[in-house]
Amino acid sequence: MEVINLKEKARAIEKLYDYQIISKMNNHTFTLVKVENRTLDFHIHPESDEVFFIVEGKMKLEFRSKIVELHEGDMIVVPKGIEHRPICESLVSCLLIELDGTLTPENTGGTYV
Amino acid sequence: MEVINLKEKARAIEKLYDYQIISKMNNHTFTLVKVENRTLDFHIHPESDEVFFIVEGKMKLEFRSKIVELHEGDMIVVPKGIEHRPICESLVSCLLIELDGTLTPENTGGTYV
Repeated sequence: MEVINLKEKARAIEKLYDYQIISKMNNHTFTLVKVENRTLDFHIHPESDEVFFIVEGKMKLEFRSKIVELHEGDMIVVPKGIEHRPICESLVSCLLIELDGTLTPENTGGTYV
Repeated sequence: MEVINLKEKARAIEKLYDYQIISKMNNHTFTLVKVENRTLDFHIHPESDEVFFIVEGKMKLEFRSKIVELHEGDMIVVPKGIEHRPICESLVSCLLIELDGTLTPENTGGTYV
């Protein structure tokens, strides 16, 4: 049982698009990622809702019907099957929560490596 | 799809021990609660891991083997079946994540109302 400070953990990440699994709970994975100056491709996760929580910075999340702005401390749940794409104009550190195995190179809008 | 700022949401809660469900993802519930000056009873959740994320303030989490301190921005996952009790000496706003139905009056150390 490790205490994880999300900002400290995010600040220690040196590479962009380096999806770091920081924790697991039940059958879900908690992943931290830093992104900058990148608009991902539209994509869906057919089997899992997806939580975005902004640890530091800001980003936008585009849906087919609207764009929402996310700032530090904001969270949103994208329901499974809903097309979305992150728009990250400036540096943002984001916590993602999904069912285990959801994030793959084919399923993250072009940045998962 | 609602953008939720955790601090704003927590600051709007007027009563202590008022477990507010703020979001759902897959089969999990996101609950905000404010606690102050209260040590809960030892308890377990036999069916679900439990995430504690400190939105504002600080608290301790006691296990049979150790006590950990949690400050703003910290998270910890308590595995299912592990006895624990929150020790909240000063005002703390905490986000909890568990399987739906995990939090009940019998299963939250004496504060769920």
